[in-house]
Amino acid sequence: MIIKLKKNINQELINNITEKLDNIAYKSNIVSTQYADYIIGVGKNEIDIRSIGVLEGVDDIHRVTSSAKLVSRKWKTQETIIDLGDDVKIGGGHFQIMAGPCSIESEEQIETTVQHLLDNNIKIMRGGVYKPRSSPYAFRGLGLEGLKIFYKHCNAKGIKIITEVMMTDQIDGMYDYIDIFQVGARNSQNFNLLDALGKLDKPVMLKRALSGTIDELLASAEYIFSNGNEDIMLCERGIRTYETAYRNTFDINSIPLLKKKSHLPVIIDASHGVGIREFVEPVSLAGVIAGGDAVITEVHQTPQIAFSDGAQTLSHKEAKIYYENIRKTVEFRKGLKRF
Amino acid sequence: MIIKLKKNINQELINNITEKLDNIAYKSNIVSTQYADYIIGVGKNEIDIRSIGVLEGVDDIHRVTSSAKLVSRKWKTQETIIDLGDDVKIGGGHFQIMAGPCSIESEEQIETTVQHLLDNNIKIMRGGVYKPRSSPYAFRGLGLEGLKIFYKHCNAKGIKIITEVMMTDQIDGMYDYIDIFQVGARNSQNFNLLDALGKLDKPVMLKRALSGTIDELLASAEYIFSNGNEDIMLCERGIRTYETAYRNTFDINSIPLLKKKSHLPVIIDASHGVGIREFVEPVSLAGVIAGGDAVITEVHQTPQIAFSDGAQTLSHKEAKIYYENIRKTVEFRKGLKRF
Amino acid sequence: MIIKLKKNINQELINNITEKLDNIAYKSNIVSTQYADYIIGVGKNEIDIRSIGVLEGVDDIHRVTSSAKLVSRKWKTQETIIDLGDDVKIGGGHFQIMAGPCSIESEEQIETTVQHLLDNNIKIMRGGVYKPRSSPYAFRGLGLEGLKIFYKHCNAKGIKIITEVMMTDQIDGMYDYIDIFQVGARNSQNFNLLDALGKLDKPVMLKRALSGTIDELLASAEYIFSNGNEDIMLCERGIRTYETAYRNTFDINSIPLLKKKSHLPVIIDASHGVGIREFVEPVSLAGVIAGGDAVITEVHQTPQIAFSDGAQTLSHKEAKIYYENIRKTVEFRKGLKRF
Amino acid sequence: MIIKLKKNINQELINNITEKLDNIAYKSNIVSTQYADYIIGVGKNEIDIRSIGVLEGVDDIHRVTSSAKLVSRKWKTQETIIDLGDDVKIGGGHFQIMAGPCSIESEEQIETTVQHLLDNNIKIMRGGVYKPRSSPYAFRGLGLEGLKIFYKHCNAKGIKIITEVMMTDQIDGMYDYIDIFQVGARNSQNFNLLDALGKLDKPVMLKRALSGTIDELLASAEYIFSNGNEDIMLCERGIRTYETAYRNTFDINSIPLLKKKSHLPVIIDASHGVGIREFVEPVSLAGVIAGGDAVITEVHQTPQIAFSDGAQTLSHKEAKIYYENIRKTVEFRKGLKRF
Repeated sequence: MIIKLKKNINQELINNITEKLDNIAYKSNIVSTQYADYIIGVGKNEIDIRSIGVLEGVDDIHRVTSSAKLVSRKWKTQETIIDLGDDVKIGGGHFQIMAGPCSIESEEQIETTVQHLLDNNIKIMRGGVYKPRSSPYAFRGLGLEGLKIFYKHCNAKGIKIITEVMMTDQIDGMYDYIDIFQVGARNSQNFNLLDALGKLDKPVMLKRALSGTIDELLASAEYIFSNGNEDIMLCERGIRTYETAYRNTFDINSIPLLKKKSHLPVIIDASHGVGIREFVEPVSLAGVIAGGDAVITEVHQTPQIAFSDGAQTLSHKEAKIYYENIRKTVEFRKGLKRF
Repeated sequence: MIIKLKKNINQELINNITEKLDNIAYKSNIVSTQYADYIIGVGKNEIDIRSIGVLEGVDDIHRVTSSAKLVSRKWKTQETIIDLGDDVKIGGGHFQIMAGPCSIESEEQIETTVQHLLDNNIKIMRGGVYKPRSSPYAFRGLGLEGLKIFYKHCNAKGIKIITEVMMTDQIDGMYDYIDIFQVGARNSQNFNLLDALGKLDKPVMLKRALSGTIDELLASAEYIFSNGNEDIMLCERGIRTYETAYRNTFDINSIPLLKKKSHLPVIIDASHGVGIREFVEPVSLAGVIAGGDAVITEVHQTPQIAFSDGAQTLSHKEAKIYYENIRKTVEFRKGLKRF
Repeated sequence: MIIKLKKNINQELINNITEKLDNIAYKSNIVSTQYADYIIGVGKNEIDIRSIGVLEGVDDIHRVTSSAKLVSRKWKTQETIIDLGDDVKIGGGHFQIMAGPCSIESEEQIETTVQHLLDNNIKIMRGGVYKPRSSPYAFRGLGLEGLKIFYKHCNAKGIKIITEVMMTDQIDGMYDYIDIFQVGARNSQNFNLLDALGKLDKPVMLKRALSGTIDELLASAEYIFSNGNEDIMLCERGIRTYETAYRNTFDINSIPLLKKKSHLPVIIDASHGVGIREFVEPVSLAGVIAGGDAVITEVHQTPQIAFSDGAQTLSHKEAKIYYENIRKTVEFRKGLKRF
Repeated sequence: MIIKLKKNINQELINNITEKLDNIAYKSNIVSTQYADYIIGVGKNEIDIRSIGVLEGVDDIHRVTSSAKLVSRKWKTQETIIDLGDDVKIGGGHFQIMAGPCSIESEEQIETTVQHLLDNNIKIMRGGVYKPRSSPYAFRGLGLEGLKIFYKHCNAKGIKIITEVMMTDQIDGMYDYIDIFQVGARNSQNFNLLDALGKLDKPVMLKRALSGTIDELLASAEYIFSNGNEDIMLCERGIRTYETAYRNTFDINSIPLLKKKSHLPVIIDASHGVGIREFVEPVSLAGVIAGGDAVITEVHQTPQIAFSDGAQTLSHKEAKIYYENIRKTVEFRKGLKRF
């Protein structure tokens, strides 16, 4: 049960509501986000929610039985819009392309990429400075110092930054230099990290786990929301299956299902979703026409020498056509009839 | 190694070639299809294929190391076109919609569906008369008698028929009444059935197995081709994964990969691929924009009372919009730039 | 609902029962096996089965709601024993080792293997004469002629034969020469083949499909039983997962679950279940201690030159120790306490 | 390449070795553990390792091409023994049973469990105080205060403690109160956590990820080892597959494979591996006979009222028989011949 509280409700009224919930054996979870205050009532008894709905201080009340409540579209039917400022928005009809290298490698690489993005009117740059690598002996990213250079160049040109955070201790250092915190697939159920990101007022893009279910993804998003941060994006990046012909199997079904189940924007990562350069474009277009709100795509001036993920990275030249096709498809889908 | 033989080559010349292959420890497999004769040489020695290519009677020679040879695009770069007559073609730029109920249930149902297809300018009707059902107590289809009625109505209106064959003993009875033999997911590696269908001159649509790999699908197609039938279509119908939110996980990656690896048309079955009515359309559109050559989709006048698969079946009213969107997307993708 | 009928019940009494079922909207499926006659009532209404149980001619009645009914242990709590004659039995406390090569390759190979089995007191020989191979160019077995030689040598020495049947047309030819029909993983849902095997009076060993569920395996067994053959064994042979370190992932969980859900014997195929020679023994022992009723294992005098599956095949020398350990473990588990 | 350095080697000699590696384009990673110092050389050139082996200060040198090096049995053929003191050891022939509730719930529950363990001569108690839960509204453990009470009772009776650590910030607080840090499946690739645990001198039990591969598990262990901690145990706890009949699919194949690939002890968690109470025993026995070095098993005085995982938890009464069977099997397997 989700109880949205009136603005400026006082503590006494809150106590009154939680007491009533207590009486019917519902546990109260107080949630205060950047936008509103809620009480999440968790219990099993069959009750008439109107008896709670009439209490003073209650703005709105909804029954949501799934374990993912605040992120559910059963409760909030309108799509969440992530507003990054400068008119850069994602969701609710606003589409964005996020592009950039897998890893931030050097200042020169950043400059080249920023220019490429400006040339193509892309507003958000991706690039890892903390890299989760399965081998401890592999390149693990340029870290905070790399991020500061990344920021210097992007900020100067009005480009927003999305980059991966791997642990709570990194959050404070990164905060001033990024626009979107990315949670990687391997941290999709790192609940302490989710808790910490939920306490921020900056957007989070949450990737589905390597073999995460739709329900687990939504439950992880619920962690962030219930800690106080409503600005969440869900990212489909392919799942692990028995098929070895590609790195992952992009789960196209998840796009319309997530759009239906949740009010949060859904992001398409076809670079990891298929893992083979020449198929990144058709799989991205598929995700767009199926309803995605943004793509996040690996591009590199010279994919052959990229520090990581070169095999799934588009060259800047290929990317130019890619962006064009993505944008055409976004326009095209607006003309489709829905039933 | 694929050796395409000249038309009207005589037996002596063939013997000469196989002898040469024998000398270099390659086993010869003679393949005669409705369109040409081939020798498939299987061996491991490194050889210079030109020494074979210069032999009399050889039209063309290609080295193909993968186990799927005749179906490979490494050998035949031009896309195969399946020609059903009356200008109904699939592949090589020709797109078709195949639609109809999961099961043929009654003469009345056939008539209603045929009219629906005519109204929407659909040229191929699907509908099962032999139904693979996991429980022996479930409805198993109307059989050959049902097929004959199916044929009577379709033939009268110029509609082509695709329906599933489950065993070799059914082939002869079905032959006169259908246009495309469908091999279901559970029979995708029923090699005896594939052998038998390879001896026919009618097209076969081969579904990927429940958890079949891309390579297994191509190897199964190779069975049909190497028995003498070149008219094969490959069908992606979703794979089995750990995700339980849908019936199957439609593998969108397979569409561009199959198009690249094979010259055979690729068919999109989103009805089984996602298994939930409202997602059949976005997943189908995804498959189309990713490069598929046809869709095969379950439609029923009243899905709620369908004998089988009702939950993934579009009503005729929904289907009308669906067809329109599919066709628009087919047109739209022609305008995309490729790189 | 399973109604076991009294021996020598007449048609009139049967009609009376089916009429009663009809009245409560239950569909009657008459099942006559080599051992008894049954009516399987399929319906959805809540009823008091005692109203049927009191009818004349009814021997016993059970409510079984799962789709696999006759193979369920809810109905038949006693374990089925497969009796191959000459005191060779499987199930209900009787354990057997089945061993032999993947493929029957030559008369000499048969003789060597038979001698090896005699030396080790093994009563059942495995060996394929019809081989399902993913490539059409691979060795496909010696066929019926090979089977006859196989039979000649085994029969002379009192060894029973288990071998794979791939299609209904092979059944008649094979019938006189084998003791157990094996259904391979790729045919586990070849329902027509299951129907046909259900009409025989010889035992069938049914393998789980490549990625078949427990419920599907039981439903496939139900096909055989409901067609009239009660002598069925279920075989766990590993499932397809994302893990590429082995050929398949042997599903050890399935052994105690199948034993609990069904009265049919459960057979352990660790050769395919792990696919790596040195792990066949520990995985087999695991299956035995978890409750399996037999092992079926690939052995070959010289695995290195076996026509197929050499990498997972034990040499005769290794097999000797293997048999010993299996037998010790069978004895050992009898001393374990159950709770 | 693994270079084990002589005890008391001086910095000059180390520099000399890394310089030589530098010359042949190998990157040096210095690893200092509680037991020894190593240089891990990572490079691609083909070299004769003897040219490095002869350098002063080198104790031993091995070529290991897999990405998991220090944990590989190719290098260290002798099994690692984890010594918890008081003659409680795991690995190298020493077998242990670890048992206890999923969650630490109360002081009374701890006392009851400790008594149960003493009665059954169990030396290691499991029990979670930080609980990873997919829903943010579920019970998340008693935290550090709970751990202190847990410790008080165990320490008084000589029982060792294994419990899960979820984030680096928890390590310091937990350090004094536990004997083994457990890394849960969801943190199996939380590389920062692995780094931090590698800097400790207490043993770590690392669980395989929900759908982690064998290679990923070993690479995660390599993180811990290469940060300085050699005392690592690998835990098989079931993988995620398409099968829904159990919570997870226990991967029995992994037991002998991990024992062969790595020198680290392998722990069997059948509670999570199958997730159904009555199958925990047969699956555990299977793991033991296949070569596991310990079991970790959920037991609870009254599983029906356990805060978490009740369905897979043995009652103390069941556990008594369970321990007995486990111990018998450990004895029994010593008598098996290996080939």
